[in-house]
Amino acid sequence: MQGAHQQETRSEDLADLFDKVRSYTETLCEPLKTEDFIPQPIVDVSPPKWNIAHTTWFFEEMILKKFVPNYQEHNPAFGFLFNSYYNTIGERTARDQRGSITRPTVEEVFAYRRAIDERMNEFLQGAIPAEAIDMVILGLNHEQQHQELLLTDLKYTFSQNPLFPTYKEDFARVGMMESWPAEFVEMDEGIYGIGHSGEGFCFDNELARHKVYLQEYSICNRLVTNGAFVDFIEDGGYTRHELWHAEGWDWVNTNTIRSPLYWHDRDGERMHYTLGGLRPLPLGAPVCHVSFYEAFAFAEWKGMRLPTEFEWEAASDKFDWGLRWEWTNSAYLPYPGFLKPIGAVGEYNGKFMINQMVLRGASAATPPGHSRQTYRNFFHPHLRWQFSGLRLVK
Amino acid sequence: MQGAHQQETRSEDLADLFDKVRSYTETLCEPLKTEDFIPQPIVDVSPPKWNIAHTTWFFEEMILKKFVPNYQEHNPAFGFLFNSYYNTIGERTARDQRGSITRPTVEEVFAYRRAIDERMNEFLQGAIPAEAIDMVILGLNHEQQHQELLLTDLKYTFSQNPLFPTYKEDFARVGMMESWPAEFVEMDEGIYGIGHSGEGFCFDNELARHKVYLQEYSICNRLVTNGAFVDFIEDGGYTRHELWHAEGWDWVNTNTIRSPLYWHDRDGERMHYTLGGLRPLPLGAPVCHVSFYEAFAFAEWKGMRLPTEFEWEAASDKFDWGLRWEWTNSAYLPYPGFLKPIGAVGEYNGKFMINQMVLRGASAATPPGHSRQTYRNFFHPHLRWQFSGLRLVK
Amino acid sequence: MQGAHQQETRSEDLADLFDKVRSYTETLCEPLKTEDFIPQPIVDVSPPKWNIAHTTWFFEEMILKKFVPNYQEHNPAFGFLFNSYYNTIGERTARDQRGSITRPTVEEVFAYRRAIDERMNEFLQGAIPAEAIDMVILGLNHEQQHQELLLTDLKYTFSQNPLFPTYKEDFARVGMMESWPAEFVEMDEGIYGIGHSGEGFCFDNELARHKVYLQEYSICNRLVTNGAFVDFIEDGGYTRHELWHAEGWDWVNTNTIRSPLYWHDRDGERMHYTLGGLRPLPLGAPVCHVSFYEAFAFAEWKGMRLPTEFEWEAASDKFDWGLRWEWTNSAYLPYPGFLKPIGAVGEYNGKFMINQMVLRGASAATPPGHSRQTYRNFFHPHLRWQFSGLRLVK
Amino acid sequence: MQGAHQQETRSEDLADLFDKVRSYTETLCEPLKTEDFIPQPIVDVSPPKWNIAHTTWFFEEMILKKFVPNYQEHNPAFGFLFNSYYNTIGERTARDQRGSITRPTVEEVFAYRRAIDERMNEFLQGAIPAEAIDMVILGLNHEQQHQELLLTDLKYTFSQNPLFPTYKEDFARVGMMESWPAEFVEMDEGIYGIGHSGEGFCFDNELARHKVYLQEYSICNRLVTNGAFVDFIEDGGYTRHELWHAEGWDWVNTNTIRSPLYWHDRDGERMHYTLGGLRPLPLGAPVCHVSFYEAFAFAEWKGMRLPTEFEWEAASDKFDWGLRWEWTNSAYLPYPGFLKPIGAVGEYNGKFMINQMVLRGASAATPPGHSRQTYRNFFHPHLRWQFSGLRLVK
Repeated sequence: MQGAHQQETRSEDLADLFDKVRSYTETLCEPLKTEDFIPQPIVDVSPPKWNIAHTTWFFEEMILKKFVPNYQEHNPAFGFLFNSYYNTIGERTARDQRGSITRPTVEEVFAYRRAIDERMNEFLQGAIPAEAIDMVILGLNHEQQHQELLLTDLKYTFSQNPLFPTYKEDFARVGMMESWPAEFVEMDEGIYGIGHSGEGFCFDNELARHKVYLQEYSICNRLVTNGAFVDFIEDGGYTRHELWHAEGWDWVNTNTIRSPLYWHDRDGERMHYTLGGLRPLPLGAPVCHVSFYEAFAFAEWKGMRLPTEFEWEAASDKFDWGLRWEWTNSAYLPYPGFLKPIGAVGEYNGKFMINQMVLRGASAATPPGHSRQTYRNFFHPHLRWQFSGLRLVK
Repeated sequence: MQGAHQQETRSEDLADLFDKVRSYTETLCEPLKTEDFIPQPIVDVSPPKWNIAHTTWFFEEMILKKFVPNYQEHNPAFGFLFNSYYNTIGERTARDQRGSITRPTVEEVFAYRRAIDERMNEFLQGAIPAEAIDMVILGLNHEQQHQELLLTDLKYTFSQNPLFPTYKEDFARVGMMESWPAEFVEMDEGIYGIGHSGEGFCFDNELARHKVYLQEYSICNRLVTNGAFVDFIEDGGYTRHELWHAEGWDWVNTNTIRSPLYWHDRDGERMHYTLGGLRPLPLGAPVCHVSFYEAFAFAEWKGMRLPTEFEWEAASDKFDWGLRWEWTNSAYLPYPGFLKPIGAVGEYNGKFMINQMVLRGASAATPPGHSRQTYRNFFHPHLRWQFSGLRLVK
Repeated sequence: MQGAHQQETRSEDLADLFDKVRSYTETLCEPLKTEDFIPQPIVDVSPPKWNIAHTTWFFEEMILKKFVPNYQEHNPAFGFLFNSYYNTIGERTARDQRGSITRPTVEEVFAYRRAIDERMNEFLQGAIPAEAIDMVILGLNHEQQHQELLLTDLKYTFSQNPLFPTYKEDFARVGMMESWPAEFVEMDEGIYGIGHSGEGFCFDNELARHKVYLQEYSICNRLVTNGAFVDFIEDGGYTRHELWHAEGWDWVNTNTIRSPLYWHDRDGERMHYTLGGLRPLPLGAPVCHVSFYEAFAFAEWKGMRLPTEFEWEAASDKFDWGLRWEWTNSAYLPYPGFLKPIGAVGEYNGKFMINQMVLRGASAATPPGHSRQTYRNFFHPHLRWQFSGLRLVK
Repeated sequence: MQGAHQQETRSEDLADLFDKVRSYTETLCEPLKTEDFIPQPIVDVSPPKWNIAHTTWFFEEMILKKFVPNYQEHNPAFGFLFNSYYNTIGERTARDQRGSITRPTVEEVFAYRRAIDERMNEFLQGAIPAEAIDMVILGLNHEQQHQELLLTDLKYTFSQNPLFPTYKEDFARVGMMESWPAEFVEMDEGIYGIGHSGEGFCFDNELARHKVYLQEYSICNRLVTNGAFVDFIEDGGYTRHELWHAEGWDWVNTNTIRSPLYWHDRDGERMHYTLGGLRPLPLGAPVCHVSFYEAFAFAEWKGMRLPTEFEWEAASDKFDWGLRWEWTNSAYLPYPGFLKPIGAVGEYNGKFMINQMVLRGASAATPPGHSRQTYRNFFHPHLRWQFSGLRLVK
């Protein structure tokens, strides 16, 4: 899965890293009640219980079962329950029925988690084969992806509740943008290197590093704000077909979309639901929870466009990023030289390379240190439960 | 809602009855874990949490708010969250989103329940208007209906779990049939009285009592067994179009139906999922969890038919009933002289009198004393998560 | 299929009847263009080409192939193409793909029709077994049902065309009601005979004749008018949940129903599409193209109700009928003693006896002489492409 | 719409071209019966009648109404009936209801066609503004696209008919591949020019010409054959999840896909439906009617991949093409510098640039001279009613 071998990672560093990443998941779960671990309101959202069991199962399945001699499975049924989509490994619970599984209980799942952590810690004390090191690092990056999903999924579930529950009071402040002036950075025509290189971890979809020819372009140093999106709405943005893709226009009309997700009107005041509760909409903050269709229509309305993922990556030294996942106008496709790994981890990325658009950067829900300039996230163009925003190019 | 006024019900009897029925709900909840209270795997199933809150809300809305001066609502949001389908009362949570509501927590809902019980107990100590007595009795019968649903819904949710959780070890034995010989009771042609009369409680759909002319018929004194249903299956019952309604045949083929719900094959042995876990199928027990379509096709195969609800009621002194809800070949329609009550309780029954078939009797999940010979249950013909069986007529 | 044997029907009478009924179908087709014979806009509607081929196929399959020695099929593929729903006979074209079949051409189908008519005429000259006589008469009644469907289906197809084509200029006048005064006819409580008796033809669903006990009721001698339905609309009938079945209310809101089918607003004037083109809505004419849900809601609004099919039949000597098919509040179920015929014709009626409501009478599209007081038509409660109206009871 | 102005096109050349292209449509229609002009079996398919009216309407709307003073519309309703998807121009018939419109008749539509041709011929005799010239040429290219669709759509409609009608006996031979040896052409790493340049016509999506950096690759000089695809099938290609995109795997299983479209098994012999009727499958001919998902899975199975559209274009001088539309692994996205034209023609291409994959080349159904090396066709990845095939890269 990783591009570069990690052979110099020392055992004790790895054990530390393991502990740090795994603990962070538990920290994220602290404000939750038992009930919050169960629901799956839409198929895209996973229950937190499934999430914490699945990330644990990954280490049991990919490390302990493979590298620990005579390893006894914690519970043979858990593979079926907590596998996500790895057809190679076998049968699994229907993806849309995860919210119906009440047993094992949340307590039992945390016990499973602790048991696997213990076995992993033992394992990480010993001499570890290079292949296992790679897989542990992959497992930790996988866990970080699920940390992000834990928050975005929880926000969606909570948002269905008319009481608008609060996850953490101060979460509303996360993702605010400093009020630096918007400027367009000019980029020259020419050949640029794209994709991951060097020794750190990366996912297979960031490889191989290759050359891309770009035309001249200018990219904005800041994200589009809520305030600008309000202008778009007030100028009839959601009712002007010429700004939209044909499929976007169908989506808008079929679902009666009139604003980004989680926006509410309370007696004429614009509010938005946050993990800190229902709050007045901060006009200066970057807009969030927009679909690709909305991002594209906004850019059309501005007479500009979204960057390609290559333009984004080539210019990413020149601006700050990390508050919102940023939609690009690139479809999620393999890089030249992309090689699908053998076995179950080969299902990690490649099989999703159709009908999805690439997002670049990171968001307020991304664990610290998880993303990088070459990181490629991807979603279907109508989805918007992620902390997704946009940046303009002209 | 009730047919006959209950004016002679004394306060202390009513308080006792209230306590008894309400406690029984809590007894039913004892084996549940917090997690079990949350899921709604299909729209027909309600989460136990919703169930226990909704039955409580009924008393708050219909009694305390109406009859207690200056009553302060426990929590104004609960009306929205726990109203079921009473359009008259106002907005409510979408019926298929009940499983997404994690807050209030289970503990908070039980606290709500205790608070309302306390206020109800105070109320029931005083002088109670006749109208309020009627409404309390309706509320208790309503709660008993939800006690039944609690079990049938829980069984459906648990059945989605590949671990087949156990609710109560000894629940599997409930609903066994004594092995008395099957006989057909002969009934004469003539006029019969149908519907409720006398002083006890009944629902509005059991009224008015009226005359019905029946032709001669013979009705079996026992229910169709699992063993007989196995014979039907082995004789190709699910693959012979001529036994089925056209819509039943579509249902069988679209959903690949090959047995009653909850039947499983384990290495060639017929098993069924029960609230006591996965068990070998007892051939002598009455078949359960069949749809109307299946009940009808079975009767066709036997060269017999299902009784009408009138035939069932007219003969119901002549056989034992109460193990399964029994499908009849009667559509759920108003009796002559049916009057829809004014206000929200008018939505209790009348608006469902279309596209549903009547079931008579009671089931293993029915609280003791809740049903009677004139009781009319009703479901869409494809549904089978109820403890539904059948009895033959020739 | 028929209840009573037709043994006294003489050959020459039968040949005359055959000629008369078959010719009428062709008369109905005269105003059609070749193009009109093809489309199937919704699954409930059949293309006219299919219709005229299917009624022909019925005689080939049920008479010629069975009773003519060494009969050679006209074209073996036609059985597959023009069978409707007789599973007993074998494979058939998917019901919703009838509109995709352009070959055989319309001309070839009429040639098929003429060829079968010729063979039938030869057959009807000879000595005909009683069983064949019954089947010919069934085939002719079947054809008359399809004559009715030809018009109702064509109206639906034409109504999809923004040009509102005219079938026949003077068709708009069909179905006008004389302006006699509305009166309620009183009917006594007691036992009434229901179902067909005597020697004429009837369908199996009209049998067996049996006794029904009715309570006292009054039934209106005329149908509900367009004018009355306008009052219902203007009084908010489509926006008042308490008038509707729960499923009717869903149907109204999901489909944004605001008037009977085929009503249009042209610059504030109420118009309706007829087979004579788009015309101003005649307020005195009986309302048409309403669903059962709408008929029920209208009756609720009036504080009255729909008759049961038994009430309708018992009183049908006392009022004129035949302008609209009239919704009753009876579900389509077998009569006591109903016997499903053996073989393919057993699929004629019995397998549809679920989830449908009975209509009584006849409509402007019914061929003369086809209906009778015991005739039972039936449709799903949401359908309204038939010429369906309503009559009130109190 | 066009990239380069066509100012040197002389009037008489344009009139000739107009006549030639328009006549070809009529030639294609010659084998059709009136009935064949009507059906729309799926939303992707348009009725031939709509097709020939729509291409005519394009000239009336875009040329005659704009450039002929005091032009009187042939029939004002036709704009509504025969507009395809131009929101800018106004209301139109729902795209999935085109098959319900029987009037105007086929004869009337051909009369419309002749009338517009006459007016166009008059117009083309005079002095024509440059803008009009461009639009006429666009209209002719548009008509050629519909000529192709006429055949592909007709094939789909005919394929629904169990009689497998023949369009033209000799059409089956179209698209055969000479048996030259398969070889891989090696292409160097470097910068290539992509997109249209020069003076001929092109669509807006072929612009602007720009530079692309390609890595080294080898591309096969011939298409994948039916025989190779049979090998894929026999090696379990449709049952091996690891070869498929996740969405492709769902598509295969939901739709029980087991072969390319139009393949049939007749008593163990592989046949395929062609416009020349049902024929034995020619193993040496290029495979046809595969979806992108199937093309991708086949390449995976071979251990190769599909070319990107840039790789295809850069190498297109080195191999023959034109028998099948060839799937590429490029998403349909705008080129750098793409400019959406102002007004209705701006809806021609840009709004479809999402969720579709690019095909390059041409097919047996493409009118002679219509395609070119820079031509970009595009379809959703599950569609396969086009004459689509594939070429491999390694």
